[in-house]
Amino acid sequence: MSKPVCYSTKAFATPSATSPLSAAVIERRVPTATDVQIQILYCGVCHSDLHFARNEWHFTQYPAVPGHEIVGRVTAVGSGVKKFKVGDTVGVGCLVDSCRTCPECRSGLEQFCGGMVMTYGSMDKHLNRPTLGGYAQSIVVTEDFVLRMPANLDLAAAAPLLCAGITTYSPLRKWQVGPGHKVGIVGLGGLGHMGVKFARAFGARVVLFTTSPGKTADAQRLGAHEVVVSKDAAAMAAHAGSFDFILDTVSANHDVNAYLNLLKRDGHLVLVGAPEQPVAVAPFSLIFARRSFSGSLIGGLPETQEMLDFCGRHGITADIERIRMDQINTAYERMLKSDVKYRFVIDMATLA
Amino acid sequence: MSKPVCYSTKAFATPSATSPLSAAVIERRVPTATDVQIQILYCGVCHSDLHFARNEWHFTQYPAVPGHEIVGRVTAVGSGVKKFKVGDTVGVGCLVDSCRTCPECRSGLEQFCGGMVMTYGSMDKHLNRPTLGGYAQSIVVTEDFVLRMPANLDLAAAAPLLCAGITTYSPLRKWQVGPGHKVGIVGLGGLGHMGVKFARAFGARVVLFTTSPGKTADAQRLGAHEVVVSKDAAAMAAHAGSFDFILDTVSANHDVNAYLNLLKRDGHLVLVGAPEQPVAVAPFSLIFARRSFSGSLIGGLPETQEMLDFCGRHGITADIERIRMDQINTAYERMLKSDVKYRFVIDMATLA
Repeated sequence: MSKPVCYSTKAFATPSATSPLSAAVIERRVPTATDVQIQILYCGVCHSDLHFARNEWHFTQYPAVPGHEIVGRVTAVGSGVKKFKVGDTVGVGCLVDSCRTCPECRSGLEQFCGGMVMTYGSMDKHLNRPTLGGYAQSIVVTEDFVLRMPANLDLAAAAPLLCAGITTYSPLRKWQVGPGHKVGIVGLGGLGHMGVKFARAFGARVVLFTTSPGKTADAQRLGAHEVVVSKDAAAMAAHAGSFDFILDTVSANHDVNAYLNLLKRDGHLVLVGAPEQPVAVAPFSLIFARRSFSGSLIGGLPETQEMLDFCGRHGITADIERIRMDQINTAYERMLKSDVKYRFVIDMATLA
Repeated sequence: MSKPVCYSTKAFATPSATSPLSAAVIERRVPTATDVQIQILYCGVCHSDLHFARNEWHFTQYPAVPGHEIVGRVTAVGSGVKKFKVGDTVGVGCLVDSCRTCPECRSGLEQFCGGMVMTYGSMDKHLNRPTLGGYAQSIVVTEDFVLRMPANLDLAAAAPLLCAGITTYSPLRKWQVGPGHKVGIVGLGGLGHMGVKFARAFGARVVLFTTSPGKTADAQRLGAHEVVVSKDAAAMAAHAGSFDFILDTVSANHDVNAYLNLLKRDGHLVLVGAPEQPVAVAPFSLIFARRSFSGSLIGGLPETQEMLDFCGRHGITADIERIRMDQINTAYERMLKSDVKYRFVIDMATLA
């Protein structure tokens, strides 16, 4: 296969694990028949971006361009594109392609496809180099991996729905959280604050667990019925055995048994943060109440569209802080200190 | 409440964590209106008996009498007993009472009742001392915790159904294992050999995992379609991502991630052995295929009766080695070396 015709676009990239991100020019393919070309308006800043830029997952190739919470406007479509036209507002999340034929793909669960192509850091089938993410003025994506944005949402605040949103929406739906359920959300960051909003929207009683007493009022504003400071042993003990479901959004190493023990019989704890170290699970925490400990990864394309539509109907977006593209390195440092309420979103118009 | 009238019965007991078991005389209550008095014919030897006798769970009070795989004949019934009459063959498993009023009890899941009374080592509500198990000539149990034995089963070989049987039957049923499913059973001991039999009877494709190549032929005889030696990395890799369900019966500390990685998307690994140490779970093993890691504990009374009835219809019993009561200490040592195919059962007629 010959290399497709390319065009240049401005981006922010890093040349190594230890360099700051800085302005660069990258190539995108000129749209093929099934491609959609998108002018990126906003890109959310996910903690994964930082892990990837700094090679903390040990697979980054450089130069690297992070960004997988992309919202933009269609600027061109291939001759065979059916679902989108120039001018549409669209989104792109963590995936830009998959094998299309495996059982996972056929079930609309492309995130579990062995051949999934991530928005950054996967092998780009067209250009035979790693995929480059959304810290850029433009991107080209096959139409099946492009999502339609609801017309009524603030586009900047909607960008984090593409990763933080679907990552929390999907497990809450999979485990059928709804009215009559008592649901815990562990951690009030980018993921956790979306978890609180969705669990509340689904009709559950929502309890937010945080290590920071200062987050109580904000958690309640976001939808939590109750806030528990997880370092308060008595407060934790008061909730023992009472939860139907707990969504654990914390990526730092932490004691999951403290949360497993809060579940009812047959309750589920689902991890969406990914601690680096193996998680120590006390067998008796599981056995004596038939509890389960699971993990969940973003969501497939059909469910991501469903989530966006749900957010449109319910007016749900992320709480964000807009930044300029050249503030990204400072934003990473602030993110490491949890100094963000609750997601940075890059205004791509500032990448001039 | 005054202490009820008691009678004496012969038993095998241990006076301390470091003493062998030896002949003793213990007291049982004379049956109250709702009690069933049972002459014990056979009692299976569960690994829990050894943990308990040696205080490895740190709650044993002495003198201690283990034994919770009890099969016997009814010798007396209280005036209010409706379900049993003198001469019936009956079973008693790990539980002899519970609170009867909590949601778990009302759901027939007495094993999760906070007030469950275990057959040995719980506080006996009647006698205000620890309950004493089935290494004895006779036991008295409230009728709601007595099970009916199928008429066609060998009673000695049926005794292990009361713990090893229900412990493996219950999770296979809860997670709805059946035709079209590929099921792994980890470990071929007392629990594992029952797991193989049940999974096969439920119509699944059954793969037995063992560290011992010598167990292959026997596992196939018991019902396994395939046997994988878990130390064979290539054989393990060949099964990656292919199992719907894995039942892990191993109590020794071991790497569960090796089995988690064999599950399909949305697959379940359920622990019924209880390793002493916390189990290290790699978050990515769960997240990247939405797998779950759960535990299961014996089963409630209704399901235990259902299991016994199923065994009666399908002619399922344990593979056992009969021993005399005075061989129990040797049996414990052999059990520690996994030198048993696959359950010791005490012939209580030898406790003369």
